[in-house]
Amino acid sequence: MKNLISMRDVSKDDVLRLIDLAGKIERKEVVPEMSGVLAALLFFEPSTRTHFSFDTAMKKLGGNTFSMTGTSTTSVKKGETLRDTLMTISMYADLIIMRHKVEGAARFAAETVDIPVINAGDGANQHPTQAMLDMYSIQKTQGTLNDLKIGLVGDLRLGRTVHSLAQAMADFNPTFYFTSPQHLQMPAAIKDDLTAKGVHYEEVDDLREIIPELDVMYVTRIQKERFAVPEDYEKVKNSYIIRKSMLENVKDNFKVLHPLPRVNEVSTDVDNTPYAYYFQQARNGVFMRQAIITTLLGKA
Amino acid sequence: MKNLISMRDVSKDDVLRLIDLAGKIERKEVVPEMSGVLAALLFFEPSTRTHFSFDTAMKKLGGNTFSMTGTSTTSVKKGETLRDTLMTISMYADLIIMRHKVEGAARFAAETVDIPVINAGDGANQHPTQAMLDMYSIQKTQGTLNDLKIGLVGDLRLGRTVHSLAQAMADFNPTFYFTSPQHLQMPAAIKDDLTAKGVHYEEVDDLREIIPELDVMYVTRIQKERFAVPEDYEKVKNSYIIRKSMLENVKDNFKVLHPLPRVNEVSTDVDNTPYAYYFQQARNGVFMRQAIITTLLGKA
Amino acid sequence: MKNLISMRDVSKDDVLRLIDLAGKIERKEVVPEMSGVLAALLFFEPSTRTHFSFDTAMKKLGGNTFSMTGTSTTSVKKGETLRDTLMTISMYADLIIMRHKVEGAARFAAETVDIPVINAGDGANQHPTQAMLDMYSIQKTQGTLNDLKIGLVGDLRLGRTVHSLAQAMADFNPTFYFTSPQHLQMPAAIKDDLTAKGVHYEEVDDLREIIPELDVMYVTRIQKERFAVPEDYEKVKNSYIIRKSMLENVKDNFKVLHPLPRVNEVSTDVDNTPYAYYFQQARNGVFMRQAIITTLLGKA
Repeated sequence: MKNLISMRDVSKDDVLRLIDLAGKIERKEVVPEMSGVLAALLFFEPSTRTHFSFDTAMKKLGGNTFSMTGTSTTSVKKGETLRDTLMTISMYADLIIMRHKVEGAARFAAETVDIPVINAGDGANQHPTQAMLDMYSIQKTQGTLNDLKIGLVGDLRLGRTVHSLAQAMADFNPTFYFTSPQHLQMPAAIKDDLTAKGVHYEEVDDLREIIPELDVMYVTRIQKERFAVPEDYEKVKNSYIIRKSMLENVKDNFKVLHPLPRVNEVSTDVDNTPYAYYFQQARNGVFMRQAIITTLLGKA
Repeated sequence: MKNLISMRDVSKDDVLRLIDLAGKIERKEVVPEMSGVLAALLFFEPSTRTHFSFDTAMKKLGGNTFSMTGTSTTSVKKGETLRDTLMTISMYADLIIMRHKVEGAARFAAETVDIPVINAGDGANQHPTQAMLDMYSIQKTQGTLNDLKIGLVGDLRLGRTVHSLAQAMADFNPTFYFTSPQHLQMPAAIKDDLTAKGVHYEEVDDLREIIPELDVMYVTRIQKERFAVPEDYEKVKNSYIIRKSMLENVKDNFKVLHPLPRVNEVSTDVDNTPYAYYFQQARNGVFMRQAIITTLLGKA
Repeated sequence: MKNLISMRDVSKDDVLRLIDLAGKIERKEVVPEMSGVLAALLFFEPSTRTHFSFDTAMKKLGGNTFSMTGTSTTSVKKGETLRDTLMTISMYADLIIMRHKVEGAARFAAETVDIPVINAGDGANQHPTQAMLDMYSIQKTQGTLNDLKIGLVGDLRLGRTVHSLAQAMADFNPTFYFTSPQHLQMPAAIKDDLTAKGVHYEEVDDLREIIPELDVMYVTRIQKERFAVPEDYEKVKNSYIIRKSMLENVKDNFKVLHPLPRVNEVSTDVDNTPYAYYFQQARNGVFMRQAIITTLLGKA
C-alpha cells in the first residue's frame, strides 16, 4: 500500500493487517517512531472532527502536522493550480492527508506527488479511513468481523460512510438490514454490488422488528437539508431515532455505532447503556489512523 | 486537583505548592516529561495571548496541542451539542483547556469528560490561571505573599482578573487599595467577602497618595466601551494612567503588574524603569501554566 | 549574526557559511537539536507557502511553532501597539519569524525584542531567506556561485525576490540578462548599484537570444494587477512565458528557477525536462531556513 484512496483498493488481507496493527498500537505493543515526520493536512473542505483525529494520530506518535483549511489560501488566490500546490506541499511534508469536495481529487493527488496520500473524504465518494475505523470498532466489540448481523439506519442514499462500510464488510459474510426513509434508501448500485458478492440484505421498515437480531447497529444522521419539503422531514425523523426503550431485548454483544456528529438520531438516554459505543469508536479512529499512516510510511 | 475551574476550589496549600513547582520548572530543577501528551485548546471565545501562553507551556515541555477557535466549527454547525463536542474531544486529547463566554461552561466541561479541564476564562466569572500567575509574579518579586500592600487600579467592577486576585490573596493578610472611576468600583460582593475574611481595604481617589506605600500596583484596562457617554470616559481616563513621574518615591521592591494587553493606562515611559514587571509577568504565566498542567496530569 | 533582516547585512562569508550548513543539514551531517525550541510565526500579511516552509523547517528539526496570521488578532483589536505585541511574544518564543506589509517592520522588531528575528518579507523591501535559498539552489545545481550567466525574467521592477538575488549574487562576478516588459524593468537604483560593484548586465528584449548562453534562468510572475490597462497585459504576457520548445539548445547545466507560485509564466511542459528546478528549489528552502534558524539560535 502506497496510498489509501478508496476501499476498493484495500484487500481483505490489508483490512486484517491494519486492524491487527491498530490493536498493537492501542495496546502499545508497537510504538512507531515518528519524530521529525510531518503530515500535511489539506482540508480544502473543512471537517473539524476528522482533522482533529488525524492531527491527534500524528502528534501522539511524536510526529507533527501543518494544516491548510479552505480554498482561501494565498497561493490559490494568486492563481496557482491544484497540481502546483500539491507538488510544493510534497516538497515539505512526508505525507498528504486530503479532504476535498470534488470526487477523485485524492486520486489526482496520489498520481501527482511522490509521497503517500490518504483520502480523508472526497465529496460523496469515499472516506476509507472512516470505514477502516468502523471495522476496527466492530472487530473489537464482536471479537470477529465474520457472519455478523448489521443494521444500517438513517440516510443510506447520501452517506458515504455506510456505502464504504457495506462494501468493505461484504468480504466477511454479513447480513445487512437497511432502514431509511423512502427517498434516502441504499442506492441500487450498492445493492447490486452486494448481490453480486452473495451478500444477504433486507430492507426493513420498522427498526423495532430487527433490533433483537442485531450484533451491530450503525446509525447515521438524516440531514434536514436533504428534504425539499420540511413537512416530509418532520414526518419521518422520529421513526429513525434510537432510544433506550428500544434496546430491552438486544443481544449481550450488541453495540450502537455512529460516525458522529449526531443531532438527535441516537437519544442521549442511550449514552449510559452498555450498548453505546460511538465515543469509543471516535477514539478507535486515532489508533486506526496511526496504523494506516505507519503502514503507508513503511514504518510498520 | 483534577481540574482547575475556579480559585474557590484552590486551597492556600494548593497555591503554595503550585508556586513552588512553577519556580522549579522555571529553574529547570523539575523537567516534566510531556512527549506524546496532547492538550485541546478549545477557545470558543478567542484570546490570542492566553492561547499562545498555554500553547507555549505545552510545546516547550515537548507536548503538543490542537486548537479549536470560535463557534464556527463544522460540528457545531451540523447541530452537535457542546456535550458531544466535549465527549469527542476527550477521546483525542489528554487535557482540555477551555475558554467560553458563558459562565459555568468550564464547570460543565469538567463534569462531562473524564480528562482534566482547565478554565481559561468563562465570561466575567473566573480566569484562575491568570490569578495563579499573578501570585507567582508577586512571590518572585516580593519574596513572599504575606502582609503586602497592593493597589488595584482601573476597571475593578468588570475585570475578572482583579476579582480572582483579590480573593486568592485574601489568605495572605494583604492590605488593598482600590482606585477606579466611580461607576467601575469593586463590587460589594467582593468587598463583603474580604471583610468577612478580615482583610483590610481602602478605596482611594487619588493614586498619588498611596503609591509610596505600595509593594505592588496591579493595573487593568478601562474599556472605553463600558461608558455610555464618551465624555465620561474622556473625563476619567487620565486619572488612572501610571506615569514614570509618579514613581519617584516608591519602595525599592515596588512593582507594576498588568495582565496585558494595555492601551495607555501604563505609560510606556514606565517600561524602562526597574518597576515595570508586566512583560516578565507574561513569561511567568508560561511556567505557572506548566506547573498547573503537570499537576493535573499527575506528573508533578 | 543575531537577526536576518536584509541581505545588506549578510557578508559574502555569511552566505558561504549558510550554504555550507544547509548542505550539511540536508545530507544529515549536521542534526541541530531543536526539541523544546519554539518559533513564533507572525504573519501580519499572509503567505501560505513561506509559512509552511518555516513551519516545516522548525518541525522537522524537532522544534515547534505557534502562528499569528492577519491583523485581526484579539490583542490588536483591543488597541495594543505592535511594540507590546512583539514584547509579549518574545516572552513566549525563542525566535520571531515575521512577515509584514510595512517596509522596516522586521527591523523594528529586531530593535524591540531580545530574541532573534527573521524577516520573512516586509512589503516590497526585503525577503532575505528567499534570496538565500535561491543561492543555495544555484550552488547545488552549478557547483559554484562564481562567474555564472543568469537571466532574470518577468516583473523586475516590483519583485523583491529578484532585487535581493541580484544584490546578493553581485559578490560572485555574475553576468546578468534582464528581460521584462517595458514598464516593469529593473529599477535604476539596482542597476547603479550593480555598476558600482563592476557587475556586467544587459537588458534583452527577446528571451530566445540569450537562453543558449545561460546557466540559470530565474523567472517571476508578471502580475496582471500591475497593469493599468488590461490590453497592455495581454500584449506582453506571452513574450515572457518559458516553453519547452525554447530550451532545445541550452547548456547541460542549465536550470529554470521560480520562487512560486507560478501562474502561466513557466509552461507545464517544462516540468518534465531536466531543466525544471522550481519544486526542488522549494525543498531547498527548508534546508536553508533550518541553517539560518540554527545559526541565529547559536546552535550551528
